[in-house]
Amino acid sequence: MAGGPKANAVVGQSGGPTAVINESLVGVIEEANKHPEVENLYGAVHAVAGIEKEQFIDLKKLSGETLEAVAISPCAALGSSRDKPDAEYCARIFEVFKKRNIRYFFYIGGNDSANTANIINNMATETGYELRAFHIPKTIDNDLLVTDHCPGYASAAKFVACALMGDDLDNRSLPGVKIDVIMGRHAGFLTAASVLGRQREDDGPHLVYVPEKGVSLDKLLGDVEAVYRKLGRCVIAKSEGITDTDGVTWAQKLVKEPEFDDHGNIQLSGTGSLADFLAAKIKTGLGVKRVRADTFGYLQRSFAGVRSTIDAAEARACGREAVRLAMEHTSGSVAIKRTGSGGDYRFELFRTELADVAEKTKSMPDEFINADGNGITEAFVEYAMPLTGGLPETHYLGNYPRI
Amino acid sequence: MAGGPKANAVVGQSGGPTAVINESLVGVIEEANKHPEVENLYGAVHAVAGIEKEQFIDLKKLSGETLEAVAISPCAALGSSRDKPDAEYCARIFEVFKKRNIRYFFYIGGNDSANTANIINNMATETGYELRAFHIPKTIDNDLLVTDHCPGYASAAKFVACALMGDDLDNRSLPGVKIDVIMGRHAGFLTAASVLGRQREDDGPHLVYVPEKGVSLDKLLGDVEAVYRKLGRCVIAKSEGITDTDGVTWAQKLVKEPEFDDHGNIQLSGTGSLADFLAAKIKTGLGVKRVRADTFGYLQRSFAGVRSTIDAAEARACGREAVRLAMEHTSGSVAIKRTGSGGDYRFELFRTELADVAEKTKSMPDEFINADGNGITEAFVEYAMPLTGGLPETHYLGNYPRI
Repeated sequence: MAGGPKANAVVGQSGGPTAVINESLVGVIEEANKHPEVENLYGAVHAVAGIEKEQFIDLKKLSGETLEAVAISPCAALGSSRDKPDAEYCARIFEVFKKRNIRYFFYIGGNDSANTANIINNMATETGYELRAFHIPKTIDNDLLVTDHCPGYASAAKFVACALMGDDLDNRSLPGVKIDVIMGRHAGFLTAASVLGRQREDDGPHLVYVPEKGVSLDKLLGDVEAVYRKLGRCVIAKSEGITDTDGVTWAQKLVKEPEFDDHGNIQLSGTGSLADFLAAKIKTGLGVKRVRADTFGYLQRSFAGVRSTIDAAEARACGREAVRLAMEHTSGSVAIKRTGSGGDYRFELFRTELADVAEKTKSMPDEFINADGNGITEAFVEYAMPLTGGLPETHYLGNYPRI
Repeated sequence: MAGGPKANAVVGQSGGPTAVINESLVGVIEEANKHPEVENLYGAVHAVAGIEKEQFIDLKKLSGETLEAVAISPCAALGSSRDKPDAEYCARIFEVFKKRNIRYFFYIGGNDSANTANIINNMATETGYELRAFHIPKTIDNDLLVTDHCPGYASAAKFVACALMGDDLDNRSLPGVKIDVIMGRHAGFLTAASVLGRQREDDGPHLVYVPEKGVSLDKLLGDVEAVYRKLGRCVIAKSEGITDTDGVTWAQKLVKEPEFDDHGNIQLSGTGSLADFLAAKIKTGLGVKRVRADTFGYLQRSFAGVRSTIDAAEARACGREAVRLAMEHTSGSVAIKRTGSGGDYRFELFRTELADVAEKTKSMPDEFINADGNGITEAFVEYAMPLTGGLPETHYLGNYPRI
């Protein structure tokens, strides 16, 4: 099926923003500009919500200078949405597609977004509407199936690593117990990135808890006590989505009226309650005076100026690849394959089926988590470090020999 | 009084860390290496606590390479302390000074640290011990008297500005109300820096509250409602030390058992309770569904890799200047004078008395705060922007004309 139909295209950005989601958008625009099959390229303002309401901007008119300015901006330049279209919503989207002769649909997002693309694609097939629907991966959670890793993850990982590097030095300066709560609903990849900046043997985080391994409060307090006794301080990195040993998230146990989004996800970020709960337990349970807790919140996904150059390049490449694939195939999701290794990091892109990515969630493999469930292995560091594009080095003098 | 005594020197880093406090340390070391009057240069591990316990490292032995690695590391490379020496504590410090023939005392820190230097200096004068005591300014709060601004502030300001730039784009992507709680006990300089990244007319933060102006919950809710009605979203930057109209801090009203440090300061950072309280009030009071709150916490002062080049240069220069001044004077604090203006930013250093800086706190001048007490003026931007050394630019497409 070589060559796509001569028609219009729409691109949208869905779900939580990242530092490089606009690179993917610019990749779509650049590649679409090369293909005469794509007549107009509509930017859907606020994703599917913008399609439904015909809130489109003309992406073919943007200058190269504007495109580069957009590419380096964090967060969705078109606006995003968490809407999950049902059959009626999809029907309205098809009305707009027909009216505007839109036969290319590019959707940048996570597994919920892949699902949206899949639903729309299936409906197109059922109704005999010729459509080419492509999902472009994006998530700081790094939890999509098939792909080696997800655009957006490495920049967020770099942010978390830099944050922990500084926070660990802060904790050396003024010792105590420090808890950092990091994004990650089901997958611990981002929390695991907290270890990437460790440079000295006693560098923190000293304890890392991810959603893949349930942990009881007693176990956690015991772990903290052991580190604190040994080092006189303790830095803890903890996923927001961490569960108790019964599988229920701690967050859910703490809030009286949990807030859910359209996809049934409970609100975990944008609140400091989990961090504060833990800090209070450590203070009273272990009798440590100086206990502090920070919840990194939205800075992890949107901070301006901190991003991985490799992540940026991959995000751009994924956007381009989606358009190229749409000239040859009717649907799919772009995935990354790692080639080369270590310092010689390289990647290739390939097409996978929407259904293989839609709604599914990848967890951290067992080999990335230590046996005790409170730390991250070297195998993870080997996996994640090349993606960051390099981290700052630090130097501490306080452990030099005394005179 | 030209030329200092031929004797040993000690340098310490006190109070909360910053991104450039190690630049000042390296400045002291570099300059001390040039003066044969300074025989040994002791680095006090954990500030006055390290002096009292004779926890010293040899700073004259460090290579140039090590010094540059230290300089770019965030947080106190020697370790810090919040101890406030009383008369007995000071007496023990003098025992160590005498034993080690220490006659130069360099102390990098805020107004509490200037006070410590002043107490020690006064005791030296009273007991006839020849000592040269110098304070080197450091605080992300920017609240020291005499100096135009404080080393450490501009890097933290850059962090806050970059955070808000991203967070405002995040809020455009997924609209709602977002509250960011920023460090600042009594002075609003750091919270005010949240406006430095604004590039479009409707960029956030849309409301800024600083400790200099008390605000009631009703007034704040009314402000938020007005912005939300107009823009469909609202980003709020709020100092952790904000007070109600009765002058009592909101934080103090919220916590049952406030924690105070040796200097009588209540714990404000390392907890999300103020942010969560406000978020709940806005949700219930205004009926806005999507309300999120982040407390920036320690990332503001310790994040690895984000700092202002001007701040770094000034911090280094202040460390050097303290040693030079100690060759000519018996005590003092280093202060910055701004020369040049706008894009042609330059600075000079001068000596001020320890007593003029010790324990005193500078607030934001009225001209930096708008009449309504919920925003920051252009006069502040003119004051602070040159110090950041430049901020990233961003581009948003969602407000382009529709097609």
